[in-house]
Amino acid sequence: MKKAYISTNCGILSAASVVGKLEKQGPLGACFDLHSVDDRFGQKTWEKAEAEMQRLALNTALAKGELSDRDLDAIFAGDLLNQCIGAAYGLKDFQTPYFGLYGACSTVAEGLILASLLVSSGQMEYAAAVASSHYCAAERQYRSPIEYGAQRAPTAQWTVTGAGAFIVGEADHAMAFVKGVIPGTVIEKGVRDSANMGAAMAPAATHTLLRFFEETGTRPSDFDLIATGDLGYEGGDIFCQLMALEGVDIRPVYNDCGMMIYSRDTQDTHAGGSGCGCSATVLASYLLPKLAAGELHRVLLMGTGAMMSPQSIQQGESIPAVAHLICLTSEEEKEWELF
Amino acid sequence: MKKAYISTNCGILSAASVVGKLEKQGPLGACFDLHSVDDRFGQKTWEKAEAEMQRLALNTALAKGELSDRDLDAIFAGDLLNQCIGAAYGLKDFQTPYFGLYGACSTVAEGLILASLLVSSGQMEYAAAVASSHYCAAERQYRSPIEYGAQRAPTAQWTVTGAGAFIVGEADHAMAFVKGVIPGTVIEKGVRDSANMGAAMAPAATHTLLRFFEETGTRPSDFDLIATGDLGYEGGDIFCQLMALEGVDIRPVYNDCGMMIYSRDTQDTHAGGSGCGCSATVLASYLLPKLAAGELHRVLLMGTGAMMSPQSIQQGESIPAVAHLICLTSEEEKEWELF
Repeated sequence: MKKAYISTNCGILSAASVVGKLEKQGPLGACFDLHSVDDRFGQKTWEKAEAEMQRLALNTALAKGELSDRDLDAIFAGDLLNQCIGAAYGLKDFQTPYFGLYGACSTVAEGLILASLLVSSGQMEYAAAVASSHYCAAERQYRSPIEYGAQRAPTAQWTVTGAGAFIVGEADHAMAFVKGVIPGTVIEKGVRDSANMGAAMAPAATHTLLRFFEETGTRPSDFDLIATGDLGYEGGDIFCQLMALEGVDIRPVYNDCGMMIYSRDTQDTHAGGSGCGCSATVLASYLLPKLAAGELHRVLLMGTGAMMSPQSIQQGESIPAVAHLICLTSEEEKEWELF
Repeated sequence: MKKAYISTNCGILSAASVVGKLEKQGPLGACFDLHSVDDRFGQKTWEKAEAEMQRLALNTALAKGELSDRDLDAIFAGDLLNQCIGAAYGLKDFQTPYFGLYGACSTVAEGLILASLLVSSGQMEYAAAVASSHYCAAERQYRSPIEYGAQRAPTAQWTVTGAGAFIVGEADHAMAFVKGVIPGTVIEKGVRDSANMGAAMAPAATHTLLRFFEETGTRPSDFDLIATGDLGYEGGDIFCQLMALEGVDIRPVYNDCGMMIYSRDTQDTHAGGSGCGCSATVLASYLLPKLAAGELHRVLLMGTGAMMSPQSIQQGESIPAVAHLICLTSEEEKEWELF
């Protein structure tokens, strides 16, 4: 089979995170750049609030990187809203070529892969990746408006209200280096329960991670951290089990952004966080600063996405999923040769 | 301002088109590869029919290119359905890394740009771009189910039932050569009428085309054809007027895929065709074969997309739009230097 792994030579220069109230109250609360105490960000609708989060996130990431939108060669952005209006409206005032993405909750990883490939090839100098989700907008679109008070299944995850933005550029002076990427293949193993998306996405994460180890000759102990985007407690456990069945024990270095963002003790989100904003905000606020500070050295991040719609589920379809992988290192491990 | 134009060095190796009944009856009817007499493609729902069109289109394009899915490094695909389920479900059985796109009706141009950039850089050997739309699925999602019999505005366009797939690879022996690309910037000029999307998209097409002429030093007479994806009669006319106001007369070489696909005399689609499938099927079935045969030599194709959703319109927002440009040439013009 053809190799999916592609080496890159670039870095993430700056990143920013914008979150809602619940995320601000969580264990990573102090790490986020901006938040709104009522999740509204001064807007009249949840959808406009989500768009505003994207605008704020990219603005902040640009400011941190001492860049303007005119320096960017492209923005890669998306979200979970129908027709991706969070990204389209939130970013419409940036004077930058725009690539709209739909990778469900894997969007930020998908965007970082494309930005990294095009910067590494020299076709672009600076490219941004932006993604968001909003709990209230997602609930009314995918399930029921929050005012309805529907009971949630124990395996259900909590859509993160948050947006993350990242500026990719040349490797010098980056917060972290992008060593390589694997764009994920769509995997569908027959899971039809849209209240258990972790289970639907775990096989896709397994497929991508096994492929990464096989193609690069690395193993879990080569990494400080292997993080998935939003498998949550349920999906994360299934993922570790699926990997173990293939003879690969990832538990010592495994974590999931959906398990990191909320406190299991004090914040009852059932199976953990989810949404495009989950991996985007955890990467921007927590993982990248740790890589920049040399507290983490070799990190694999897999953005995980469930590609169904409410309509496809109503029509009896299973949930296809995808997992996009990026391999990040600190300054010290910049020259690390994977092969 | 930074240049948006990026030179490429690759070709479209093969292409395939799949359409519905109305498209088959239109002036390009004889050019399409596959069609369904009832627009259902053997499926029980319109959404599944759309997914099936994507599968058929990519299968046919691969077969024409004498390739299999295992030869592809990536698929870039999308559609208009919520959460892009046409692409996600239609292409899930191809064993290929998958990048989901949301560019509204500009999706095929967006996919061709990304595929062309990554093949030109040598990071990928073969990449596919696929996009689709389905009249009945689009009507019930964006407006009302067709059974309701709603009256259409004179400026409304008819969503094409169709899918197109393209294989991008090295330039030798290609049907057409991709000389360069400009990813579009999101432009919003205050149009709120979702029954007149041509008007909403015309300023984005103007922005991209002016930028192309400025950055490459070319002019309309350098081209056999400048085609937009789906501005239709209404938007196409506005586009020509906007270009004329900037001192550029494109009328002698201008056409629009939405004006080409249906007969204005015998098929009353009001302002012409639209949808991701519009530019995808016209490019695959008509423009590329003409480039391959040497009947066209220098073509600009601009995929045009309106990035609103029914919800954003209900919430009083305007329609942001984008236009992605690819510059195609025949074998004879392969060495043409634009600058």
